[in-house]
Amino acid sequence: MLGNFSYKNATKLYFGDDSLRYLNEELPKYGKTVQLIYGGGSIKRTGLYDEIVTILKDNGKTVVEDGGVMPNPTVEKLYEGVRLARENDVDLLLAVGGGSCCDYAKAVSVSVHCDEDPWDKYYLRFEEPACEIVPVGCVLTMVGTGSEMNAGAVITNHAQKLKIGHVFGDEVMPKFSILNPMYTLTLPKRQMVSGIYDIFNHICEQYFSGEDDNTSDYIAEALMKSVIHSSLIALENPNDYEARSNIMWTATWALNTLISRGKSTDWMVHMLGQSAGAYTDATHGMTLSAVSLPYYRFILPYGLAKFKRFATEVWGVCPEGKTDEQVAEEGLAAMEAWMRKLGVALNLSELGATEDMIEGIADGTIILDGGYKVLTRDEVVEILRQSL
Amino acid sequence: MLGNFSYKNATKLYFGDDSLRYLNEELPKYGKTVQLIYGGGSIKRTGLYDEIVTILKDNGKTVVEDGGVMPNPTVEKLYEGVRLARENDVDLLLAVGGGSCCDYAKAVSVSVHCDEDPWDKYYLRFEEPACEIVPVGCVLTMVGTGSEMNAGAVITNHAQKLKIGHVFGDEVMPKFSILNPMYTLTLPKRQMVSGIYDIFNHICEQYFSGEDDNTSDYIAEALMKSVIHSSLIALENPNDYEARSNIMWTATWALNTLISRGKSTDWMVHMLGQSAGAYTDATHGMTLSAVSLPYYRFILPYGLAKFKRFATEVWGVCPEGKTDEQVAEEGLAAMEAWMRKLGVALNLSELGATEDMIEGIADGTIILDGGYKVLTRDEVVEILRQSL
Repeated sequence: MLGNFSYKNATKLYFGDDSLRYLNEELPKYGKTVQLIYGGGSIKRTGLYDEIVTILKDNGKTVVEDGGVMPNPTVEKLYEGVRLARENDVDLLLAVGGGSCCDYAKAVSVSVHCDEDPWDKYYLRFEEPACEIVPVGCVLTMVGTGSEMNAGAVITNHAQKLKIGHVFGDEVMPKFSILNPMYTLTLPKRQMVSGIYDIFNHICEQYFSGEDDNTSDYIAEALMKSVIHSSLIALENPNDYEARSNIMWTATWALNTLISRGKSTDWMVHMLGQSAGAYTDATHGMTLSAVSLPYYRFILPYGLAKFKRFATEVWGVCPEGKTDEQVAEEGLAAMEAWMRKLGVALNLSELGATEDMIEGIADGTIILDGGYKVLTRDEVVEILRQSL
Repeated sequence: MLGNFSYKNATKLYFGDDSLRYLNEELPKYGKTVQLIYGGGSIKRTGLYDEIVTILKDNGKTVVEDGGVMPNPTVEKLYEGVRLARENDVDLLLAVGGGSCCDYAKAVSVSVHCDEDPWDKYYLRFEEPACEIVPVGCVLTMVGTGSEMNAGAVITNHAQKLKIGHVFGDEVMPKFSILNPMYTLTLPKRQMVSGIYDIFNHICEQYFSGEDDNTSDYIAEALMKSVIHSSLIALENPNDYEARSNIMWTATWALNTLISRGKSTDWMVHMLGQSAGAYTDATHGMTLSAVSLPYYRFILPYGLAKFKRFATEVWGVCPEGKTDEQVAEEGLAAMEAWMRKLGVALNLSELGATEDMIEGIADGTIILDGGYKVLTRDEVVEILRQSL
């Protein structure tokens, strides 16, 4: 059944090739000091940095520079961002980049006015913020994580070999996000396909759980079909605006809490992938793709009906004259063929993981209980070995 | 392509069989005086009225009674509600009922502090509110309109023989809505199926427009498939909570602006149906069902590709060995068979419309230009005749 839940998502989205100008509508709502968060500097090469700084100055804002956010934002970077925000008494955290920048901005937002250590409080103890939260806005340049319209923030602690995501409450969601598909056209292919797989897997994580028959599953299938369809067009022609815009929009809805309403969810691919990410520092989407097929093939017998539905509804597998197992396996084979076409990582070895890391990755894998099979530690090790 | 757009929907939803208790979380956010809006009194028979009044009293609220909202709220009722709200200086409009009560509450919300005549300003001139808007909350007892999470409000003016809907801006959306599927179990079958067809047609109105290939269409198909699936279960067993809860949830997403993002929309079935509604005072969903098939069969040649997609993706029509026209027509035939099974009105005569009303209904039909064919007035008359 559709279980009890609440839903609120108040992020204002501006979508399209002219969406940056709406920054002028949002900025007057906030105080004078803006912490400008970005990554390795690609926005300086593309000119977006200059465009945004001009808009900020035109709106009378003081800019606090906070560049250098890495693909997997570290706890040390978080401390630095919090220090910057405190020293400058910032009024708005403006993240320009992909999921890492958005996640980082949200982690800073709940930590600026927090007296405790944010890593311990939010990532080890999973506590909720009790302090004032600094508002966050996003200008998205990469797609995949859905961070632009959710309250999640993943932080990596290399010393502790842990990469952990905390999904905060509604009040941590960005106040606004600017989604311009044009910014995504220039991404290297590897980043594009990594983002595409990230989107797809977010949907899978929410789909492969529960025996219920509900609207969320239909919407999940729609989003999967749309991203598969557009990915093949974008692969052929990365400059296809229609395909790239649909991928961007699908990414937002794949992980903004809608498709998980009223149902249980899995998230074990993320647990496995994130733990591997702490060892390899590989792109998020690639760590997910590397462990997905071994994981799904392992749990298939426990969630047979859903894997069969996945095969027929998402991949168009014809069930006639086949056993349920055959249909379900054909679905995963179709998914594998698509992943090969995309060129995403199909094992952890190609991301730099080695046999001697397996035990450590298994230690860092948080075992959740929402999927079709609650894994034992031995099963985690087995799946990781099959992912090598 | 996915056109440029903005999106914000901040309504907080509480969904489930225990959702009424969350009224206790919302009420403290508003001032002392609550205008309690409801319909013909069925909530007194079910006991819901007493439950809500108790919660209001427990929260120290003064209750201003505003019952008797009719299925198609009239402009006279609107004036009365505005007078009540002004006289009592109300702080919150709490609608308990279906789409009529929610629509009415929203129309009151933008009129209380408005100096001009609200019918003229909002419904004849389609202007936006420039005044303070009184907050609205909903407790939904019937499903279909999606009014619980959108900014639309339909008002009927019998003297002018006009039934007009205005979709206001984000700020008119309910602040919160309580969705308890249990309340819908006791609805008479005719109201249930009318609501189901209303949901389905909301999706059609947004689906049958544009040549684009975008995520919104995939989501629209998912919602159609979900409501068709659940409707057949609910028809068999109206007490099936799973089916009724999925119908309720699908209704919300069928018309909360999501599936129209980035695309054109049609809404001609609503224009025809609403105009007929002003003459017959029939239930909204039934006026829509009565004109749908004649309209869709008329525009099919102009939107052939989409009608073909509708047939294969929503109704599972096999396209092999058939012309596109045949496939498209089979889709509409499948839709008709489903409508017959539901038992919704298939013509206007059974709703009390007569030949001599045709010209008047045509006069009251606003001709929009978002669909596959901009109708001439003669074509409107032709479609209405075929709907008799």
